Amino acid sequence: MNIRTIDWKNNKIRIIDQTKLPLKLEYIDIHRLKDLKRAIKTMQVRGAPALGAAAGLGMYLGVKDYVGSDWKKFIRKLNTVAKYIESSRPTARNLFWGIEKVLAVALANKDKPVSKIKQDMLAQAQLIMRQDMAACRKIGFYGAKLLKKNSRVLTICNAGILATIDYGTALGVIYSAQAQGKTIKVFSAETRPLLQGARLSSWELNKQGIEVTLIADNTAAKLMDDGEIDLVITGADRIAANGDTANKIGTFNLAVLAKYHKIPFYVAAPQSTFDLKIKNRSGIKIEMRKATEVTSILFKRNVAPAHAKIVNPAFDITPYQLISGLITDKGIIRPPYLKNIVRIFKVHPVRKSGV
Amino acid sequence: MNIRTIDWKNNKIRIIDQTKLPLKLEYIDIHRLKDLKRAIKTMQVRGAPALGAAAGLGMYLGVKDYVGSDWKKFIRKLNTVAKYIESSRPTARNLFWGIEKVLAVALANKDKPVSKIKQDMLAQAQLIMRQDMAACRKIGFYGAKLLKKNSRVLTICNAGILATIDYGTALGVIYSAQAQGKTIKVFSAETRPLLQGARLSSWELNKQGIEVTLIADNTAAKLMDDGEIDLVITGADRIAANGDTANKIGTFNLAVLAKYHKIPFYVAAPQSTFDLKIKNRSGIKIEMRKATEVTSILFKRNVAPAHAKIVNPAFDITPYQLISGLITDKGIIRPPYLKNIVRIFKVHPVRKSGV
Repeated sequence: MNIRTIDWKNNKIRIIDQTKLPLKLEYIDIHRLKDLKRAIKTMQVRGAPALGAAAGLGMYLGVKDYVGSDWKKFIRKLNTVAKYIESSRPTARNLFWGIEKVLAVALANKDKPVSKIKQDMLAQAQLIMRQDMAACRKIGFYGAKLLKKNSRVLTICNAGILATIDYGTALGVIYSAQAQGKTIKVFSAETRPLLQGARLSSWELNKQGIEVTLIADNTAAKLMDDGEIDLVITGADRIAANGDTANKIGTFNLAVLAKYHKIPFYVAAPQSTFDLKIKNRSGIKIEMRKATEVTSILFKRNVAPAHAKIVNPAFDITPYQLISGLITDKGIIRPPYLKNIVRIFKVHPVRKSGV
Repeated sequence: MNIRTIDWKNNKIRIIDQTKLPLKLEYIDIHRLKDLKRAIKTMQVRGAPALGAAAGLGMYLGVKDYVGSDWKKFIRKLNTVAKYIESSRPTARNLFWGIEKVLAVALANKDKPVSKIKQDMLAQAQLIMRQDMAACRKIGFYGAKLLKKNSRVLTICNAGILATIDYGTALGVIYSAQAQGKTIKVFSAETRPLLQGARLSSWELNKQGIEVTLIADNTAAKLMDDGEIDLVITGADRIAANGDTANKIGTFNLAVLAKYHKIPFYVAAPQSTFDLKIKNRSGIKIEMRKATEVTSILFKRNVAPAHAKIVNPAFDITPYQLISGLITDKGIIRPPYLKNIVRIFKVHPVRKSGV
């Protein structure tokens, strides 16, 4: 089944409304920047690479109907748009990267008419999507080598089709192995509070014909102890220069459990998720989200006393020492990360800008 | 606030219907054995010590209206009742212990008329409740020594008033420290799938004036890493002779995380939870529960594809190596457990039977 998480269609951003899954597969067309921001905040669209595309397209959406021709004023407007999109969610590196990539096009083309710059910006945002599609397939290619014929993989949250454009990072590795004829069995941790593992990963894996078993997050240690898990693969929201990895809350738990049980723990992410300006985890901002995500289930039934005090961090950071390897579109990076991350990206530098 | 989880009232078993909490505090009167079994299976009453009382009272309930006077036939009937209660849930040791204690009264009083034996059985079941009330307070007394003036304790599931008669094991330690003037702060892991931490522990701690912060189970590693947790205390469903401890699924996760973060991990349980006939965890049967507990939240809204494959063990086993100490009503048992568990219970042997 072909699923497209985010696209540019009829002059609008088309996304799958992920808050409706698994009950309904519904698309939304977004033509106003404030609707995009709300879609990001409420996680109608989520997943670091998908957010990179959303942010890139959002930069264009924010100035699509801009009528002035003065470059300076245009850039000022663009910076306002960028700030507005940035204020949606703080942790995923790709969101900022998407903004930067599209902004760079405008900054590098001072001499062109604004209308032409806007066209180039849209082209750049579309390139971000194509690059993600290619990057995920490369991650899949490299990562699949880690999987044997019948490997059993534990994952958390959703680092699949629905977190990217159309393929996935951690789950891309599974799909790639499947294409090679391997029969991978996936355990999907449900991922409280917002249950992306239950609602999204088990839905899409099933659609793609992968055997998936859903578990409460609490079941991970028991399964590892029972010998049911060969390796853990998760996605990432931001990776620091030393390999410290921010990802969905609960990832760090799994990394510690994997270490204790001597099970390899891998992180799969494209280059756009790496933030080499940040030395280590102390520089990563963790988004704190609403109490109601925990006190009620998907904002419906109350499962805790109404005024219960809550701590609800959306992410945690897995220290690099717990990570067996970083599966990227440039290959698998092994420790020591501080040296090897820089090295792999020096050989394959990020393109500075431009289409 | 005085809360009584289970009692014998007006010739019936009166329990708090825990499936209604935290929305409503409702009592149910049970006068038929099959209603008791359903109440145990659906966790209207749960928690190892409370199940010990429920089973003990159930033994009497099952023969209360028995009319014969032949001792042998009576014992046969009692064995049927015992088997019936045993088939409700397999893991909590106390349930079996409650049955054994009441059965022993009948077995030891062959010469008395059946009507008198029945009276003695009820008295024994009521003694089980009084002994639990005393045992929990002793657990609290010994455990409170582990807590400093402002200790921050992480717990999982509910090992409180609602898991016992009226005080709690793990939470009894908190209440005891509170009574000594200490200001304990509790983090309550919500405990998927059935959310006892959210629904029960945060409710009762709040009622008792303890500051409690509810977290998704996934948040534990982050909180420990942030230095927010001084120690972990959980209850237990069954403890083997070597200290291996079965408790609510997710307990093992916390024990591994605590070890990694060098945070003490304690188990609080009365002597009736120890099963010295079982050498180690290989002898403990883990109850597997329905998929719908995971695919839907409290059986209401679907949060996973309807036919998702599920593994839903109700418990896991924490290996003794991860346990800093066992807080019991006879004192705190430290490693090596194999020697020290036997020793403490030799000094304080289980009373064989009788009122």
